[in-house]
Amino acid sequence: MALIVQKYGGSSVADADSIKRVAKRIAEAKRAGDDVVVVVSAMGDTTDELIDLAQQITPLPPQREMDILLTAGERISMSLLAMAISSLGVEAQSFTGQQAGVITDSAHGKARIIDVTPSRIQQAVDSGAVAIVAGFQGVTQHTNDVTTLGRGGSDTTAVALAAALHADVCEIYTDVDGVFTADPRIVPSARKIDRITYDEMLEMAASGAKVLVLRCVEYARRYGVPVHVRSSFSTRTGTLVTDAPTEQGAPMEQPIIAGVAHDRSEAKITIVDVPDVPGKAARIFEVVAGAGVNLDMIVQNVSVASTGRTDISFTLPATDGAAATAALTEHQPDIGFTSLQYDDTIGKLSLIGAGMKSHPGVSARLFAALSDAGINIEMISTSEIRISVVTRADQLDDAVRAVHTAFDLDSADEQAVVYGGTGR
Amino acid sequence: MALIVQKYGGSSVADADSIKRVAKRIAEAKRAGDDVVVVVSAMGDTTDELIDLAQQITPLPPQREMDILLTAGERISMSLLAMAISSLGVEAQSFTGQQAGVITDSAHGKARIIDVTPSRIQQAVDSGAVAIVAGFQGVTQHTNDVTTLGRGGSDTTAVALAAALHADVCEIYTDVDGVFTADPRIVPSARKIDRITYDEMLEMAASGAKVLVLRCVEYARRYGVPVHVRSSFSTRTGTLVTDAPTEQGAPMEQPIIAGVAHDRSEAKITIVDVPDVPGKAARIFEVVAGAGVNLDMIVQNVSVASTGRTDISFTLPATDGAAATAALTEHQPDIGFTSLQYDDTIGKLSLIGAGMKSHPGVSARLFAALSDAGINIEMISTSEIRISVVTRADQLDDAVRAVHTAFDLDSADEQAVVYGGTGR
Repeated sequence: MALIVQKYGGSSVADADSIKRVAKRIAEAKRAGDDVVVVVSAMGDTTDELIDLAQQITPLPPQREMDILLTAGERISMSLLAMAISSLGVEAQSFTGQQAGVITDSAHGKARIIDVTPSRIQQAVDSGAVAIVAGFQGVTQHTNDVTTLGRGGSDTTAVALAAALHADVCEIYTDVDGVFTADPRIVPSARKIDRITYDEMLEMAASGAKVLVLRCVEYARRYGVPVHVRSSFSTRTGTLVTDAPTEQGAPMEQPIIAGVAHDRSEAKITIVDVPDVPGKAARIFEVVAGAGVNLDMIVQNVSVASTGRTDISFTLPATDGAAATAALTEHQPDIGFTSLQYDDTIGKLSLIGAGMKSHPGVSARLFAALSDAGINIEMISTSEIRISVVTRADQLDDAVRAVHTAFDLDSADEQAVVYGGTGR
Repeated sequence: MALIVQKYGGSSVADADSIKRVAKRIAEAKRAGDDVVVVVSAMGDTTDELIDLAQQITPLPPQREMDILLTAGERISMSLLAMAISSLGVEAQSFTGQQAGVITDSAHGKARIIDVTPSRIQQAVDSGAVAIVAGFQGVTQHTNDVTTLGRGGSDTTAVALAAALHADVCEIYTDVDGVFTADPRIVPSARKIDRITYDEMLEMAASGAKVLVLRCVEYARRYGVPVHVRSSFSTRTGTLVTDAPTEQGAPMEQPIIAGVAHDRSEAKITIVDVPDVPGKAARIFEVVAGAGVNLDMIVQNVSVASTGRTDISFTLPATDGAAATAALTEHQPDIGFTSLQYDDTIGKLSLIGAGMKSHPGVSARLFAALSDAGINIEMISTSEIRISVVTRADQLDDAVRAVHTAFDLDSADEQAVVYGGTGR
C-alpha cells in the first residue's frame, strides 16, 4: 500500500463534469488500496475572474487582500471535489492551506514555504479518508495571514506535502502526457520522456519548458520526492522525475540528451562603448541587480585596442526590460557608456542532458545543426548538462526542429499532444 | 469617538460599483472620527451560484464541505471591500470568521456561536484600520473546521462582534429604511418605526417580519447591543432596537402598538376525533416533537360530550408538514384519532406592542376590525405584547390592512419602500 499525492490543475477541474471525472479517478486509486492525498487548483478561469473583479475595484489592490480574494478559488474547487468523491461512496475531506499546515513567509503573492506540518492530513489519511488540500495557498507563521505561493504554487504545494508526508510518489496531473523532448506544438515528432533526472528537469524548467515550474523541481530534488508528470485525460504512464537515472528494465546508460527547451520570454540589452577598465562590468551588474532584475546570459566582446572600449550584452526577462533600461540610463554618467540597445526579438534554445558531460562533441554537433539550417547564433552559455544559444526570435522554431532532429530525438510513433497548463 | 459595527448584506455589495459605494460610506464614518468594524455578506447571488454548483455535483453534499464552499462567498466580498476602502486612502484589513475569533459549535450549516474572541479585530481597530469581517461564518473550537451560521447569520455575526467589542451601536444596513409598522408591499401607508424594544422586535421577528432574524435580536437583547436598522441607499435614520423605550426628546409613553407582522409560511394540521382522555394531547405533541418539528399555535376544541372525543389543531412551519404528518400517521393506532387534515392555505397576522399590556381593549379592537372587514378568525394565541390570529391565506393582506388602519398606524407622508433582503 502506497501513499500517493495527486495534484490536479485548473483545467482538470474546470466544471462540474470535469470534477466528477477527476473524483472517479481518485476513488479508483483509493479503492485499489492506496492512501491518497489530493492537491487541487482553482477551477478553470476562476482566478482570472477574481483578478478581474479586483481590477474593477482598484488598479493596485493591497497584496494581503488580493491573496484572501484569490484563495477563494481553491476553497470552491476543493469542497466540490470532496463532495464528488463522497458521492461515490469514498470518504473525503477538504482542507485549506492553513488546515493542511502549509506555513509560509509573509511575501504576499509569492510566498515561500517555510514548513509543512500536515498532522490533520495524516489524521484524515489514517482514518481512511481521501484528503483534499487547497493548492497555491498557505498561512504565515505568527499572524495566521493567508498567503499565495505565486506561479506554479499548486505543484509546489503538492511536492512539499508529499515530502512532509513521506509519500511514495507525487503525481502531477496536467493536460499533456508528460515531459516531451521538445514542445510538440513546434516539433510534432517530439517524444514523451519516460524518466528524467532532477538536474535535467531543473535545466528544462529554467530554460522555458512549462510543464513544471523551477521551484517545484527544486523542492522535489531537495527532499528526494519522485514526481510523476502525467495526463488527467488518460491512464498512460507519464514522465518520472527522479534521482536514479536507471532501474531494472531501464537502459543502463542515460541517453545523452533529454530534450530541447525553448524560451521566447527574454530580451537582450547591449551596452555600447563601455570603458574597458576593471570594475565597470561589476558596476553595470550592480545597477541592474539594484533594480531587482535577474540576468541570464552575459557576453562581453573583445576590447577594441585602439579605443580601450568594449560592448557588453546580457539577456533578462522581457518583463524586466523597462526597469533595467531605466536604471542603466540613470547611471550612464558614472558607467560611461555611449548608448544602450534593447532587443526583445530574440529566442533562446537550450539542449539539456546529463549524458553530455561524458560525451564530447555535443556542442560541435549543435552548432553544425544550426549552421546547416542557416541560423545565426548571437550568444552562447553552457553548464555541465546544458548548452543554450540565443537566436533571432523568428528563427527559433526552425532551430528547435533542426537540433531535435540532429540529436535523434524525433519519433514517428508518439502522438503529439498540445501543451497547455494553468500556471498555478 | 464611538466604536461602530456596520453590517452590509449581499444586495449592498452585489457588484463592483455597489462595493465602491459602500466603501465610500465606511470611509466617511471613519474620517468622521469613529472606529469602524464592518461585517459583510457574500455578493448578491454568489451563495445561490455556489449552491447550484454543489447541486451539479451531488444532490446531498456533506454539510462540512458545503460550509467550506459557501464561505468562499464572504472571502471574495470582504477582500474586495477592503481593497475598495484602501483605494480611498483609509487603511482596511479583512478577516475570516476564524481570524475574527468567531467560535461556534460543530452543527455545520446552522452553527451556534459559542464565543467571540476578537483580539485581532481589536488590534486592527487600535492601529487605526477599518476591520472587515466575513459574516455568516465561524470555526469550531477544537478542530478548526469552518462552519456557517445559517439564515440571518451575518446579522448575528455583527451583533455578536458588537457585543464582544463593547461597540456603541451595531448598524444593520439593508435595502429598506428600517423596521416598518407593516410590510409596505401590503400596506403602502406603513410607517417606519423610529424606536422599538428588544421584546417587540423579537415578537415581530418571530411573527414573520423579515428585516431581522430572531436569533440576532435574541443575541442583541441578551448582551444589550443597540441595533440600528437602516438603509444602505440613504443616510436617513432608521429604526433603533434598544432596551430603553424612552430618552430625552422621545415621547415619554411608548405607543400602544409597534406594528403588524404577517406570516405565510405556516400550515395547520387538524387531528380529528381524538379520545378526550388525559395524556392524549401530550402523546400527540411528543410524537410531533420526536419528528423534530416545532409547533406554533395550538387549539383544542371543546369535547363533544356524547362521543368523548375532540379535535386538536396546531400550526407549524409548512416545510415541516411532511415530517409531522408521517410521524402522526405512524402513531395513529396508539393515539387513536380517526383522520388527519393538512391545510397550508392559512395566514397568520400578529399585532405587536409593549403598550398593549397596560391598555385594555386591544383584542376587542382587533377582532372588531377583522369582523368589519369580513375576515374569519380560525385560531388565536396571545402573549403579553402580542396577539396572533390565523386567517385564510387569501384574506391575509386585507386583514393586515384593516388592522393597520384600526390601530392608527397609517401615515400619508412616509415613502413606502419595497422589502427585500438576502437572508444571510
